[in-house]
Amino acid sequence: MSTQGLLDQIADVGRDRRRGGYSRHAFDPAERELRTWFTEQASRRGLDVETDRNGNLWAWWGNPGPDALVTGSHLDSVPGGGAFDGPLGVVSAFTAVDALRERGRPPRAPFAVVAFAEEEGGRFGVPCLGSRLLTGAIGADAARALTDPNGVTLAEAAAGAGLDPERLGPDPDRLAGIGRFVELHVEQGKGLGYENRPLAIGTDISAHGRWRFTFTGQGDHAGTTLLMHRKDPMLPAAATIGATRIAAMDASHGRATVGRLVPNPGGTNVIASTVDLWLDARAEDEYCTRAMVEEITEAARSAAEQEGCTVQVTEESYSDTVYFDRELRHEFGRVLGKVPAIPTGAGHDAGILAAHVPTGMLFVRNPTGISHAPEEFAEPEDVEQGAAALADVLEHLGS
Amino acid sequence: MSTQGLLDQIADVGRDRRRGGYSRHAFDPAERELRTWFTEQASRRGLDVETDRNGNLWAWWGNPGPDALVTGSHLDSVPGGGAFDGPLGVVSAFTAVDALRERGRPPRAPFAVVAFAEEEGGRFGVPCLGSRLLTGAIGADAARALTDPNGVTLAEAAAGAGLDPERLGPDPDRLAGIGRFVELHVEQGKGLGYENRPLAIGTDISAHGRWRFTFTGQGDHAGTTLLMHRKDPMLPAAATIGATRIAAMDASHGRATVGRLVPNPGGTNVIASTVDLWLDARAEDEYCTRAMVEEITEAARSAAEQEGCTVQVTEESYSDTVYFDRELRHEFGRVLGKVPAIPTGAGHDAGILAAHVPTGMLFVRNPTGISHAPEEFAEPEDVEQGAAALADVLEHLGS
Repeated sequence: MSTQGLLDQIADVGRDRRRGGYSRHAFDPAERELRTWFTEQASRRGLDVETDRNGNLWAWWGNPGPDALVTGSHLDSVPGGGAFDGPLGVVSAFTAVDALRERGRPPRAPFAVVAFAEEEGGRFGVPCLGSRLLTGAIGADAARALTDPNGVTLAEAAAGAGLDPERLGPDPDRLAGIGRFVELHVEQGKGLGYENRPLAIGTDISAHGRWRFTFTGQGDHAGTTLLMHRKDPMLPAAATIGATRIAAMDASHGRATVGRLVPNPGGTNVIASTVDLWLDARAEDEYCTRAMVEEITEAARSAAEQEGCTVQVTEESYSDTVYFDRELRHEFGRVLGKVPAIPTGAGHDAGILAAHVPTGMLFVRNPTGISHAPEEFAEPEDVEQGAAALADVLEHLGS
Repeated sequence: MSTQGLLDQIADVGRDRRRGGYSRHAFDPAERELRTWFTEQASRRGLDVETDRNGNLWAWWGNPGPDALVTGSHLDSVPGGGAFDGPLGVVSAFTAVDALRERGRPPRAPFAVVAFAEEEGGRFGVPCLGSRLLTGAIGADAARALTDPNGVTLAEAAAGAGLDPERLGPDPDRLAGIGRFVELHVEQGKGLGYENRPLAIGTDISAHGRWRFTFTGQGDHAGTTLLMHRKDPMLPAAATIGATRIAAMDASHGRATVGRLVPNPGGTNVIASTVDLWLDARAEDEYCTRAMVEEITEAARSAAEQEGCTVQVTEESYSDTVYFDRELRHEFGRVLGKVPAIPTGAGHDAGILAAHVPTGMLFVRNPTGISHAPEEFAEPEDVEQGAAALADVLEHLGS
């Protein structure tokens, strides 16, 4: 089975007819179907599957840890996401297992394929939730209380999927058993689009985080309320969106985005009483990122005050700049030859694990440069080249 | 049973725990519970209930039409609306029936209490949908194709509620049978808040309409996409919201509101591919309203172009200025004495019927001046005074 063939197997799971692309979120029916598929694929390869206390899936080739060589990615998507972000790293891990077996070069070290839960934060709002829980980067109580847009808590959703919500949280023994982690991922920008190379080695992940802005005004009738009596939170929310672009231009490698905004109650003929918007902010380092968020927050405060509204700003997640393991990067280069080394503005489970375990990333060319959208793409030849490169790297590291 | 007592009976139906207030939309469980309640109240009073082809409820005292005296309002709400907007006119109609009977003054003309369907357009986007269908102000095909936020069409929802979707549409015989229509409603602005009077007679309804703006850009990854490569439709959407306030200030009696905005796909770490927003625009007359909408559309086009996006503007509904029947207003004044006469910026089924039938409105004081929000209120004494005034007016008109 080719790597593309494995991707094709799940091409119909979790399609989002309204948004286009895929919507696969933690413990929803589509994601659970992918879990079943993961388990079947692992079983066919003689790997033993376990679901850890945080809902991450582990397929072990031989006995678990210590000093395990682990590879994989995630199966969930953003709302209306592409086919590659996440699954490509998982299917490539399975075909790398096939390749190592065909070559008669099974790894000497314990070896696992992993699929981390809720990497996109598409349901509960915190990205890399599975790896954050594993490493303790988010506390168990805070995680249990996270809610999805329907008000379902993570604890409830996890219980519904057969997990014990009381056991959600840090998993230090499991973490200590990981020797090295390698994540293959589709490239998400134009970093490789202009180069004549299908692969790259990751160098670092920009600092990034999510902030929730809640604007509170006075809900009222859209037709009868005089302009001078209005406290319409949509106005400062709009001014804040305008400020994000200016603030991002001011920051080194700055990117600031509002992709999610919810007015409450959300009626056409109703002045909203509150507006929630989520700021995704990224820049070169913590100083630049926080300065950018501060500039946007000041703009939000000033616009809210002008309209007689208030604004509350909550940091929902923050991840500092992550530099991948220098030694692993050199090993990758030794195996793969002259391959570009590129940074990424996207967060990954590899970024969470890098604080604890030597970690590296491989990127596969995306000719559209578009990600988190249906246009995300990788040529089938590049998909196979990526999986072969992953197998080469794992063979080298595991021997 | 007092009028307030009747309101109290439905005080727990359709409460919206997330938004606050009430969410009661066409054919949803809450609204269907209210339909059952309406039928029970009518039966207790010996009125015969029929549901017309468009889902409007009619409770007849004696035989239907011709030249019927009709009173009532609606039972649905905006999302997260108040307890009075709509139901107050229906419960007052029932207690007016009680009063006329107690006084031994049943109307000579045919008489009906009506509850129009989907007055707020909270589910299918078109306000006064039931009365628009009845009068032919919206075509049957256009109405059947309307969809709710989950993609359910009006035809499907109507069929689910036991209506024949093929029969949705103009009902000329029923319309011809209405001699006069009187709607009592809670006041929705501060029009009566500053006066020491609990009641007012309606003079006119401002011109008003709804326009949908669809901004299309390029969905992409919020972290990896360089600012210069972005086509983020949220930016022109935000600029358009800013433009509404300025345009409304320029227009005579101008009010322009964006209370509903939906980015697609709506992920925090995703640049939206499209943003839909709905403009509620009202002004003194058609010229002022359309000039205001044109000014906002120009701002939207310019902002979209600057970001490499496009915008499409669709008129979802428009209602011209409506002046209530002069003769009826004089009759109201004769019965009620020196009562303020006020215009309203809110749309009503009375505004739709006024184009076909002599129509009048009574308003009951709302001390908060707030409507379409949980803070909407009327003092119990004012509620009873309103229902008594309605009975007085109906007694006069029906004798």
